[in-house]
Amino acid sequence: MNLRDKTIQISVVGGSNPDSETMTLAEEVGKVVAEKGAVLICGGLGGVMEAAARGAKEKGGLTIGILPGYDSNSANRFIDVEVRTGLGHGRNILVAASGDILIALPGSHGTRSEVSIGLLLGKRVIGVKAWGTISGVRQVNSLKELDKELMPIF
Amino acid sequence: MNLRDKTIQISVVGGSNPDSETMTLAEEVGKVVAEKGAVLICGGLGGVMEAAARGAKEKGGLTIGILPGYDSNSANRFIDVEVRTGLGHGRNILVAASGDILIALPGSHGTRSEVSIGLLLGKRVIGVKAWGTISGVRQVNSLKELDKELMPIF
Amino acid sequence: MNLRDKTIQISVVGGSNPDSETMTLAEEVGKVVAEKGAVLICGGLGGVMEAAARGAKEKGGLTIGILPGYDSNSANRFIDVEVRTGLGHGRNILVAASGDILIALPGSHGTRSEVSIGLLLGKRVIGVKAWGTISGVRQVNSLKELDKELMPIF
Amino acid sequence: MNLRDKTIQISVVGGSNPDSETMTLAEEVGKVVAEKGAVLICGGLGGVMEAAARGAKEKGGLTIGILPGYDSNSANRFIDVEVRTGLGHGRNILVAASGDILIALPGSHGTRSEVSIGLLLGKRVIGVKAWGTISGVRQVNSLKELDKELMPIF
Repeated sequence: MNLRDKTIQISVVGGSNPDSETMTLAEEVGKVVAEKGAVLICGGLGGVMEAAARGAKEKGGLTIGILPGYDSNSANRFIDVEVRTGLGHGRNILVAASGDILIALPGSHGTRSEVSIGLLLGKRVIGVKAWGTISGVRQVNSLKELDKELMPIF
Repeated sequence: MNLRDKTIQISVVGGSNPDSETMTLAEEVGKVVAEKGAVLICGGLGGVMEAAARGAKEKGGLTIGILPGYDSNSANRFIDVEVRTGLGHGRNILVAASGDILIALPGSHGTRSEVSIGLLLGKRVIGVKAWGTISGVRQVNSLKELDKELMPIF
Repeated sequence: MNLRDKTIQISVVGGSNPDSETMTLAEEVGKVVAEKGAVLICGGLGGVMEAAARGAKEKGGLTIGILPGYDSNSANRFIDVEVRTGLGHGRNILVAASGDILIALPGSHGTRSEVSIGLLLGKRVIGVKAWGTISGVRQVNSLKELDKELMPIF
Repeated sequence: MNLRDKTIQISVVGGSNPDSETMTLAEEVGKVVAEKGAVLICGGLGGVMEAAARGAKEKGGLTIGILPGYDSNSANRFIDVEVRTGLGHGRNILVAASGDILIALPGSHGTRSEVSIGLLLGKRVIGVKAWGTISGVRQVNSLKELDKELMPIF
């Protein structure tokens, strides 16, 4: 009846306006998250957030969008539950904090803030084709390597 | 595949240390939320938050706990997804904002802050045996009356 | 050199669109705060926030505005230091928390949320011609009574 | 009477447990901020935050500490006004947002989050002997270079 002790939460972060290769990668990462049976958490808007949520929904996963504003239905259409924060960029902290693991795709300043907060909170932060220059991030360069990094957790 | 446009989110708020009558009431409210097919959102801790989540899980609902801290597994055991905010009382704003409707049971200052923010954001705020003295709250005194208040939404 | 251990911080809250009587009252309250040598903290925008800050500046006080947005120079012109939060209504928590004492003038839902959080944090909350129906608020009906309530602190 | 339109706000960020060279540097930076007539904003705790505030107070400046908790008097003793947020790491956003300019000294994940948010908000971010590898940061390596970077603003 209670999902909590069996469900892992994975936050996926990355740019809101990425190139098509990153979009494809994000969708694949979203599929992996759902296939593992984990809940996908993201910032709820476009780009990597949308592609990852789409991937998760393709595999029947549950998706949570932690939104910067208060508006209902402002999330992308692959988000099941909207957390409306009104916190602006402050919601980045919540995205980082709510994952048991943080998977970071290429992005810019907002993504870097989430990676930083994830590390600050002692999370396992996995960079997918990115963020390897930040000390503490475990960079992987393929889905196969990502799977290997996730294995100890599942 | 996508639940978002069909799933209503209902926030349930109330005291963290209520009397047994309020606990029973909160559990019944949680059941109503789940039976309607809505997602239950709450503050994730004890008292009304726990009783409502327990009620929702008894009816197979989905429960989201918006927590004041960063700790994993700090939610009550009826919470499916933990949103870890680290915001302290600031998370009350998110609980109020994330519901399409706010159902408020008896409580104290924290609950009043959530009722106030709900009204400020233009939410329908339904007080169950409480909060009727605050202008804008629609007080109901039974589950039957609650059902009537919810009917236009479902 | 260091002001901290001698300077008391007083938060003044109230409606953003009050009647002229409340505006006058807020300005007088702001004067009292500055005359006591306390720092005035408020939400930085219009109505009671502006009138109180104007009063404090008339008496040479220091004024801090805790703003809901990120924009520079969005505070009223009597604010010395802008704290730009981007937190929306979430900034109400900070206004309540940052005062050693909270003085609440008439207002609506936002003000009630600040009064509630102030009480939740164990602050002395003084309602000026308002909020006396909330348990824990010390309502006063004149500046003379306000002065009496403040006396033990100064 | 009103300071707002003539006072620039400068946020100084950096590690909470830096080496002695960075502490000395932070104190010098704090002096520069105060000598320019700017308000110094920081996170209010130890390390770079304390050294910068000490420097500012030595030159008669005004110091604001944006604290992670709710406790009164939890700031270092060189802070004039405490903004008590209860937001945990979320207060980093406010530190970055409240400066018209952000000066970043060496630090770790928390500092990087502040640099990232500063850049995201379009602030001028000046790294002092640090952060030059992040695109958008203007790294300087001496107080003389810092002064040059600040000159267009004053």
